Amino acid sequence: MASVRVELGSRSYDILIGSGLLRAPESFAGCARARASALVVSNTTVAPLYLETLSQALRGQFARVLHCVLPDGESYKDWRTLNQVFDTLLQERCDRRSVLFALGGGVVGDMTGFAAACYMRGVDFVQVPTTLLAQVDSSVGGKTGINHPAGKNMIGAFHQPRLVVADVDVLRTLPARELSAGLAEVIKHGAIADAGFFGWLEHNMPALRALDPQAVAHAVRRCCEIKADVVARDETESGARAMLNFGHTFGHAVEAAMGYGNWLHGEAVGAGMVVAAELSLAQGLIDADAARRLRALVQAAGLPLRVPQLPVARYLELMRVDKKAEAGEVRYVLLAGLGAALLRSLPDAAAAAALQAHGALAHAG
Amino acid sequence: MASVRVELGSRSYDILIGSGLLRAPESFAGCARARASALVVSNTTVAPLYLETLSQALRGQFARVLHCVLPDGESYKDWRTLNQVFDTLLQERCDRRSVLFALGGGVVGDMTGFAAACYMRGVDFVQVPTTLLAQVDSSVGGKTGINHPAGKNMIGAFHQPRLVVADVDVLRTLPARELSAGLAEVIKHGAIADAGFFGWLEHNMPALRALDPQAVAHAVRRCCEIKADVVARDETESGARAMLNFGHTFGHAVEAAMGYGNWLHGEAVGAGMVVAAELSLAQGLIDADAARRLRALVQAAGLPLRVPQLPVARYLELMRVDKKAEAGEVRYVLLAGLGAALLRSLPDAAAAAALQAHGALAHAG
Repeated sequence: MASVRVELGSRSYDILIGSGLLRAPESFAGCARARASALVVSNTTVAPLYLETLSQALRGQFARVLHCVLPDGESYKDWRTLNQVFDTLLQERCDRRSVLFALGGGVVGDMTGFAAACYMRGVDFVQVPTTLLAQVDSSVGGKTGINHPAGKNMIGAFHQPRLVVADVDVLRTLPARELSAGLAEVIKHGAIADAGFFGWLEHNMPALRALDPQAVAHAVRRCCEIKADVVARDETESGARAMLNFGHTFGHAVEAAMGYGNWLHGEAVGAGMVVAAELSLAQGLIDADAARRLRALVQAAGLPLRVPQLPVARYLELMRVDKKAEAGEVRYVLLAGLGAALLRSLPDAAAAAALQAHGALAHAG
Repeated sequence: MASVRVELGSRSYDILIGSGLLRAPESFAGCARARASALVVSNTTVAPLYLETLSQALRGQFARVLHCVLPDGESYKDWRTLNQVFDTLLQERCDRRSVLFALGGGVVGDMTGFAAACYMRGVDFVQVPTTLLAQVDSSVGGKTGINHPAGKNMIGAFHQPRLVVADVDVLRTLPARELSAGLAEVIKHGAIADAGFFGWLEHNMPALRALDPQAVAHAVRRCCEIKADVVARDETESGARAMLNFGHTFGHAVEAAMGYGNWLHGEAVGAGMVVAAELSLAQGLIDADAARRLRALVQAAGLPLRVPQLPVARYLELMRVDKKAEAGEVRYVLLAGLGAALLRSLPDAAAAAALQAHGALAHAG
C-alpha cells in the first residue's frame, strides 16, 4: 500500500492507494468514531458491487452505518438528487459528528462532498473512489459541487475530505470506456507536470488498459502526488491550481454542448487536450512533435481526438460562461513543452482556429 | 459613524454603524471593483424602499449593478428561492469577481451569503441589513444557509462577508413587531455577556422602541462588539460561539413546531430565553430576581413570555434534531448570572419542567 499526504495545515489528509483496501477495516481507522453515524452515499451501479463490502469494513468503527443510493450519471448531478442525501441525513437524525463516505466515481464524490460541506454548515467526509478518474483526480483536492443547467459545477464548495481510500482492485469492474476516460486525467498530469511520467505512460499505456495492478498503482500514485503538490500550493484555485484545468476549458464546452453525460468528462478532456495542444503549437510554445506525441497518447488511451461537429461560435459562447472566465475573458491552460504548463488569455480567433482544426465547424449548419 | 472590526485573519472585516450610510458611496469603497458586477439581492418588501438608493451608491464603483428580488419571508428560505439568485448570476454571466449585496433582513442575508458561498465555489458578499435583528446579530459572523422541511438552517455554510453596512435610519420603516423581534437578540447579548449593557437596556427600552437614533446606534454597536469578539474566538461554533444560542434551542423548536414564519425568529427567541432562564433558575445558576429581570425585559421589548400551547413531547422531539444536538443529547445554554452563560447537558425532564412552566402542555391534546 502507498500513502500520499495532502498538506493543508489543519485540513491535511492521506490518500491510501493499493489492493484490497476496501474490505480492510484498518483502511478507515483514521476516521473511525465509535459513537457517530456513517452514511455511505453511492449510486445504483456501484452499490450492488461494493456497498456491502465497505459497510462491513465500517461497522466495527461507527455506531451505525447508513446508506443512500443515488441514480447513476452526470445528468443527476443536481439539487434534486443532492437533496436525497439531506433527506436521509435528517430522517436518520444524523448529527454534526456524522461522517459521509462517497463510494463511486466523480459524480458521487462531488455530490457527497458538497452535501458534507453544507449539512449543518459542514461535516466530515471520506472519498472512496471507484473509477480511475476519481482515483487520479476528482477525489483529491476538495472541489465539490453540482451542475446548473447553464454550467457544470457552477454551485459548490471547497471542502477537503478527511481521507481518500483508492482501492485499485475495484477498477476491474469498470467498463473500458470509463477506464479510458480516467486515462485522460492521467495523461493530463504527465503533460502539465512531469515529462518523465509522460514518457512512462507512452510505454505503459497497454499495461494500464489491461489493468496491470502494479502499473495502475504507480499511475494512481504519481497522479495523486502531482495533484497533492498543486493543491497544497493553491487550495482554492487562485493560481497554480488552474494548470490542472489543461484540456478542461474546451472539455467543459463539449460536455455542456452535448448535454451532460453524453460525452464522459474524460472523453471531453481527451479531445480538449488535443485542441489545447494545437493552440500551444500555434502560439509557438511547443513543437509539432510534442503535439503529435500528445495526440498519439490520447489515441492510445482509447479517447476521441476530435470535438463534436458543432459551430465554433457555440463553443466560444460556452467557454465565456465557464467558471474560469473573468469579465468574459477566457484564460487558456497551454503546454510550454511536455511536462510544463502556463496560463494565457487569447483572442477568440486563436481558440476558434484550434477548435476547427479538430472537429468544430466554421459556421452554423 | 462607528466601526467595529471582526478579527478573523485574512477574512477580517468591518461593520459600519450609523445614519445615512446606505446612500453614501463611501460606505462601500472598501469593496469596490470597477471591472466587476454587483448583484443586489433583496425582497419584495425592502426593494421598493431601498433598492434604488443602494444601487445608486454602488453605480460608480462597479461596472454594472444587477438586481434579484426574492419573495419575502422565512417560508421562502429554501432551495427554490435560492436558485433564483443562481439563475440571475448565470443569466448575467457573473464571474468569480462579482460581489453580492444582501439588502434585507436575516432571511435575505442568510440566503445571499449562502449563494455567495456556493456560486463558483465562493464569491464575495456584503451585508446591508435592514432589520434590527439582522443589524445586531445575523449579518455578523458568516453563518449562512437555508431551511429544510425537517429543520431550520440545516443546509448552509460558514462564509464571512467582506463588509457589513448597518444604516440605523432604515429601521424607521420597520414594523413594530419586527423591531421587537430584533430586541430579543439585543437582550440576548446583554444577558450572556454584559451585565452593564443589560442594565442599560432596562433603562433604555422605551427609547429603543421609539427608535431614538443615539440609543439604537449604541445598542447595535454594543451587540456587534460582543458578537465580533465571540466570533473571533470561535468562527465555526466549536466552543464559545455556542453561547450565542441562548434561547435558541427552545426558540428553534417553537419556530419548527409552528411552521417557519408564523412566529418571528426573535419572538421565538424571546420566549425561549424566558424558558432558558427558568431552567437556569431550576439548576441553581441564577436567583429568582435575575429570572424576573429577564422576563421583565423581554416583556418590555413587546415579546411573548410563553411558548405556544403544544405538548412538551413535541418540543423535546424537535430539539433533539436541532443542529446543536449530538447523539440525540441536547446541550442547553444557561445563564450563570446576568451577563454570563455556560453550556450544560440536561435530562429531558428538566427541560420539560421549564417548558411547562411557560406554556407547554404536559400531555398531548
